[in-house]
Amino acid sequence: MRIAPTHPHVVIVGAGFGGLATARALRHVDVSVTLVDRNNYHLFQPLLYQVASGLLDPSAIASPVRTIMRRARNVDVIRAELMSVDLEHRHVDTSAVGLDYDYLVLASGSVTDYFGNANARQWSTGLKHLGDALTLRSRLLGCFETASLTVDAVTRRRLLTFAVVGGGPTGVEYSGAVAELIRHVLPKDYRRIDFAEVSVVLVEAGDRVLASFAPRLGRLAARSLERKGVRIILGQSVREVDEHGLVLQNGERVETNTVVWTAGVHAAVPLDLGDDATARGGRVKVTSQLHLPGHPEVFVIGDAAAITQDGAVLPMVAPVAIQGGKYVAREIAARINGAEVAAFRYHDKGTMATVGRGAAVAEIGPLRINGLIGWFIWVFIHLLYLVGFRSRLLALWSWAWNYFFWDRPVRLIVTADGDADPQETRGDGAG
Amino acid sequence: MRIAPTHPHVVIVGAGFGGLATARALRHVDVSVTLVDRNNYHLFQPLLYQVASGLLDPSAIASPVRTIMRRARNVDVIRAELMSVDLEHRHVDTSAVGLDYDYLVLASGSVTDYFGNANARQWSTGLKHLGDALTLRSRLLGCFETASLTVDAVTRRRLLTFAVVGGGPTGVEYSGAVAELIRHVLPKDYRRIDFAEVSVVLVEAGDRVLASFAPRLGRLAARSLERKGVRIILGQSVREVDEHGLVLQNGERVETNTVVWTAGVHAAVPLDLGDDATARGGRVKVTSQLHLPGHPEVFVIGDAAAITQDGAVLPMVAPVAIQGGKYVAREIAARINGAEVAAFRYHDKGTMATVGRGAAVAEIGPLRINGLIGWFIWVFIHLLYLVGFRSRLLALWSWAWNYFFWDRPVRLIVTADGDADPQETRGDGAG
Repeated sequence: MRIAPTHPHVVIVGAGFGGLATARALRHVDVSVTLVDRNNYHLFQPLLYQVASGLLDPSAIASPVRTIMRRARNVDVIRAELMSVDLEHRHVDTSAVGLDYDYLVLASGSVTDYFGNANARQWSTGLKHLGDALTLRSRLLGCFETASLTVDAVTRRRLLTFAVVGGGPTGVEYSGAVAELIRHVLPKDYRRIDFAEVSVVLVEAGDRVLASFAPRLGRLAARSLERKGVRIILGQSVREVDEHGLVLQNGERVETNTVVWTAGVHAAVPLDLGDDATARGGRVKVTSQLHLPGHPEVFVIGDAAAITQDGAVLPMVAPVAIQGGKYVAREIAARINGAEVAAFRYHDKGTMATVGRGAAVAEIGPLRINGLIGWFIWVFIHLLYLVGFRSRLLALWSWAWNYFFWDRPVRLIVTADGDADPQETRGDGAG
Repeated sequence: MRIAPTHPHVVIVGAGFGGLATARALRHVDVSVTLVDRNNYHLFQPLLYQVASGLLDPSAIASPVRTIMRRARNVDVIRAELMSVDLEHRHVDTSAVGLDYDYLVLASGSVTDYFGNANARQWSTGLKHLGDALTLRSRLLGCFETASLTVDAVTRRRLLTFAVVGGGPTGVEYSGAVAELIRHVLPKDYRRIDFAEVSVVLVEAGDRVLASFAPRLGRLAARSLERKGVRIILGQSVREVDEHGLVLQNGERVETNTVVWTAGVHAAVPLDLGDDATARGGRVKVTSQLHLPGHPEVFVIGDAAAITQDGAVLPMVAPVAIQGGKYVAREIAARINGAEVAAFRYHDKGTMATVGRGAAVAEIGPLRINGLIGWFIWVFIHLLYLVGFRSRLLALWSWAWNYFFWDRPVRLIVTADGDADPQETRGDGAG
């Protein structure tokens, strides 16, 4: 099937922050829009770690794309995977249909980067997809189930050690959430387990966590994690990962059955443009109007794009994608009307990260905020950006529940294909 | 590992309604209890169809067993599968540990029965486990996604036909929920689809639906389903199921990619007691004190047991399991104290089934109630029996949301192993 509408046809690949912002902003523009995503939902990735740590249900952070786009009568949604782009003939192939385009917006995001480390890919789990979060939730709880029946001390400690690789916001937020789960919730459930044997290890190759924040906030976050019992290893990259643990650059071995890889991402771009056309992390270099050099009809936004501003490449964060999406929609509308739009300029409204229940660090302009006030700001901003009234209420409700009852309600070990296999996380000392 | 406590040791297999009731009632009895289940959660099965139809999140109907049992200090929870029972040596083997018992309570429930029909097993989905419900949710939405891109009319109609086999409460409730999803929610999402092509077919081998209810209520339920657009086929069993449809006893073929099998269940009992010891559906015949004949220390309750009362075998419903569990706990406590307990007697408090948003049928003693009042009673009773304050609030909130907004918020296509594979539900006419 080939879809070729009569209006100028805008194909948007990816229903993340960038793609959604573009499609929404094109609602009242005289174009036909086709929004393609491999999933039928938009995922609010910044809160993915809360699903992975049993705080939120998936439906609090994932909303069906079709529902979000219901009122946009000129937007058609297709669940399919992008296969290839033919720049010359202005055509994309997806797993379901072929699409001719007048404008193409690549908002295809990024995927976990294992830096070519095949065993890291095999033996660790990323934290980018909803499936990753559900897998991690089941894995972590499964390790506790198995450990509670394991006599051999070495096997038990290995089951009860959780390693997080990467000290960026995802690694810091996830390890903080896991540490709180371990301190406040699980001891009530696993009375047989000696919690002195449980440990969370955060490995960061650089010399501090949250390197993108002001040094003081990074130090505060590190201290907060350490108070929760997280062991932070700085200045060490991971040399190897295997079934039973990981090896650091200095040769130290950490025995663990659970390695969460948040050390890096690279752009997900189904284009072979050559090395010169891409920057660090495979991000596509774009002009100041966010299109491919030589292809004014092909825009790249969000994590997939390397946008240079004031000599630096903009970070892979939601606000860059959202502002990029809105800009591209304006740009397309202007071109149809024969008007012009000034170059894209990103306005940094601040960055933030939670470090656990009731504590966050935030940088908003010249302000450096932490603690409970930072957390309230964090809650407010995230509620603002969550898609849909119901998701906001659900998330607020879950956060309040966690805040007042110190509880993580969604502790289910489940897969879509059938019920949990009790064998899957068995350590070899169990039985 | 072998666990052998000093107190009388009660091993309970299954954390469904029966097993939980037993464990809870044994809380203040001087015994050690080990509660074994293959999942780490108790599943409120009567609401499973609401997860399958995108109304409830899994965490509204599944609660971690350990959390439910937190205050029961004499109860140990083990996530494992029962492998075998050695009646002579009073020992059970599970996938994780071996357990010696003084008392054994088999509350192992039932599984979907395909009546030996291998192709039905291969090409249809049951509705007994949380995994089934999540699979069905993804399957149904995936069919709509694929159909919206399918040109071939035969393939498209096949994708848009949903067959439910079995007109008991599960089949009636699920087909009603799907019909409402199709009428009220999905048309807003799938504007390309002609909803005249969508159909739900309910196949029942007997001569009416809800055979366990009064005939008038069965007729009311059938009329309600038909008004929602469900085609009800009575007096026909299913002869064959294949990749593209099913064949009825009379030779009629229904073309469909989605067959939901709710036609029957049989007891899940890991004991080979011979044909004489089991009744219809593989249920274990028990004495009036709910134990195996000749084995007063082995109790069987819930769906796994065939309890004869007033000449009839009690039905496979939650109240029978719950009352059985409480009785067995009393029986064990009495035996330890050298006392006696009268024979088990089930008190039928009524049965009910929802037939959609704002409508239910209920039989309570001599009362036959239907419509909105029936639905309010249904909501009240289900809130009462849902485990945990949070689940109750979540379910109430979702029902209110559905009632007022005609919406099913949890329309996510997702698996735990990674993100949705856009190919998995592709009809052969797509592309």
